[in-house]
Amino acid sequence: MDPKALDDLLPFVLKRNNVARYEDGIVYIGDRRKYPFKKEFMRCDDVEDVARAIEDMVTQGGGPWVAAVFAMVMAAKKVDGKSLDERLDYLLKAKTRLTNTRPTNTALARRLDDAHIIAEKAARAGQSAEQALLDWIQVTRDKVYENYEYRARLGASLVDDGDGILTMCFAETAFILAMAFAKQDGKKNQVFTPETRPYLQGARLTAPSLHELEIPVQIITDNMPAHVMSEGKIQKYFTAADLITLDGHVCNKIGTFQNAIAAHHHSIPYFVFMWGADYKSPDRASIDIENRDPAEIRSCRGTPTTINDIDAYYPAFDITPPYMVSGVITMHGILSPYDLKSRFSKTQK
Amino acid sequence: MDPKALDDLLPFVLKRNNVARYEDGIVYIGDRRKYPFKKEFMRCDDVEDVARAIEDMVTQGGGPWVAAVFAMVMAAKKVDGKSLDERLDYLLKAKTRLTNTRPTNTALARRLDDAHIIAEKAARAGQSAEQALLDWIQVTRDKVYENYEYRARLGASLVDDGDGILTMCFAETAFILAMAFAKQDGKKNQVFTPETRPYLQGARLTAPSLHELEIPVQIITDNMPAHVMSEGKIQKYFTAADLITLDGHVCNKIGTFQNAIAAHHHSIPYFVFMWGADYKSPDRASIDIENRDPAEIRSCRGTPTTINDIDAYYPAFDITPPYMVSGVITMHGILSPYDLKSRFSKTQK
Repeated sequence: MDPKALDDLLPFVLKRNNVARYEDGIVYIGDRRKYPFKKEFMRCDDVEDVARAIEDMVTQGGGPWVAAVFAMVMAAKKVDGKSLDERLDYLLKAKTRLTNTRPTNTALARRLDDAHIIAEKAARAGQSAEQALLDWIQVTRDKVYENYEYRARLGASLVDDGDGILTMCFAETAFILAMAFAKQDGKKNQVFTPETRPYLQGARLTAPSLHELEIPVQIITDNMPAHVMSEGKIQKYFTAADLITLDGHVCNKIGTFQNAIAAHHHSIPYFVFMWGADYKSPDRASIDIENRDPAEIRSCRGTPTTINDIDAYYPAFDITPPYMVSGVITMHGILSPYDLKSRFSKTQK
Repeated sequence: MDPKALDDLLPFVLKRNNVARYEDGIVYIGDRRKYPFKKEFMRCDDVEDVARAIEDMVTQGGGPWVAAVFAMVMAAKKVDGKSLDERLDYLLKAKTRLTNTRPTNTALARRLDDAHIIAEKAARAGQSAEQALLDWIQVTRDKVYENYEYRARLGASLVDDGDGILTMCFAETAFILAMAFAKQDGKKNQVFTPETRPYLQGARLTAPSLHELEIPVQIITDNMPAHVMSEGKIQKYFTAADLITLDGHVCNKIGTFQNAIAAHHHSIPYFVFMWGADYKSPDRASIDIENRDPAEIRSCRGTPTTINDIDAYYPAFDITPPYMVSGVITMHGILSPYDLKSRFSKTQK
């Protein structure tokens, strides 16, 4: 599908230029903290601005890597006239700073590695790293959206007319597009989106995105999925993944595992969209779960939910074991989680 | 234990006079919507005020029946000088109005039935129904608190030193007292309280109550229990129940079932405090699940969590099947959920 036509199918928050864009040395990031109440962009003038924006959850899901590689463009531009040593030193510092913003997000780390290689190569060849990166980003994003489309069509093929669909957090372009394709195919479906505390990505991003596409959607709280399943209203469970280990463990937003247990209990299949292979994560033990500030648990969109002297705990991700995963939706097709290791060897990268 | 000594052990929100009290024809209900931010009471001048307060969640758990029977005192006082027909008619109307405030809360219905019988008996005998009810409430509450103490000691006996404890919503006096007794017995425990959206009873009532008693407690969001279990931090799961059917199905605040599935998956025992037998609820099919206003899902303490045109779904309770229940903590001891039918025959009432 033509990139423009694909973009037209997407809801506001997922359109390319609304995720993040680079204009004249400045990076603009779609502010997902303010959506759907406001459609605003965060202006970032340097690498540190972008790093803080990623840390502060201005964007999430498929957004951070795009913002981060545009930050690499800014870094490259800043030192393009300098000595090779200065250029290499600054690019490495920028990459390290940006990678450290989200220890669990391997998409971010991998794209930054790639961007760094492109930039370093240009620098060593005495070329503009800024332009080399911009060219590479264009090609990479085109490929990423082609991949979204391919996996979304696979996802849509798993949806039957009349299915109730559970998701979690904001499963991004692949999932939203899968539901759009299912609708184009004439299937009628009801999606249930848990609000996904504490950041409410389900309530703020997933539900409004589906609503914008006129796909029936109901928000529920995070304690409801099992009950809704017991009522017979859910037939399929779909999520994205921040990381899938080569032995099939799915690391995703906190709550994904709890829903997977409930789905397993109710004999509901669980499908997960895989953005790519995580070569640095062979198994469960290799996953570094990010703990975030407990203070975020004591409030909801700035409103306190309890008094400040109460302790809280905020693990941001959880891990679902492979036996609860019915299919991993990849560029190689819908795979068994036990097949990832053999399919994704480094030579096939 | 002496009623005063027991009251002293309890946190602010559970002390008798802070739940609800009757003073000179007025009912004051501890406003649990404002706690722990403010310690306020809702003044109710007539039956309708109390009914609305119960509907508006001013009190919950063990609170509604106390407020409701005090409302019956107001009703009795209002017609004490009238003809028998007027008195009986008004008392019946008051009972019906109050019972209809919470269709799932059988404790409320049963206590109101009892109160109505007391009032009608006094009226037919030409006596003051107000005084008869006040005497009956005093005796009934003493007995209820004795029962809390008995079941709390059973609950404490199930807690081992070092156990991590999961609860859900606000499991009220029996659970809080169980943790207080466990502490008195020298056991060190960490409690995890899911915040319990959308009303946040876990964040607003359970956590501050335990904190007030200096029992270590951490708030988590409702999507976290399974993950915390997978980390090995939880050894026991305790809740109250709005209703337990005679065949052992536990109806409680939405999320209880989801946690029970996760506990079952992790081989963690689930214990439930039973306030009394529910003779009108023989089985799962007899349970009427209350659906509340979906608008409540779209906000958190008055702050919108999404835009208003997004649909939402709000089943307020769920049902946990008996095979996931390790023990029902009753006045007959810690029972198997499959033993309730034989223990709680009407003749043993």
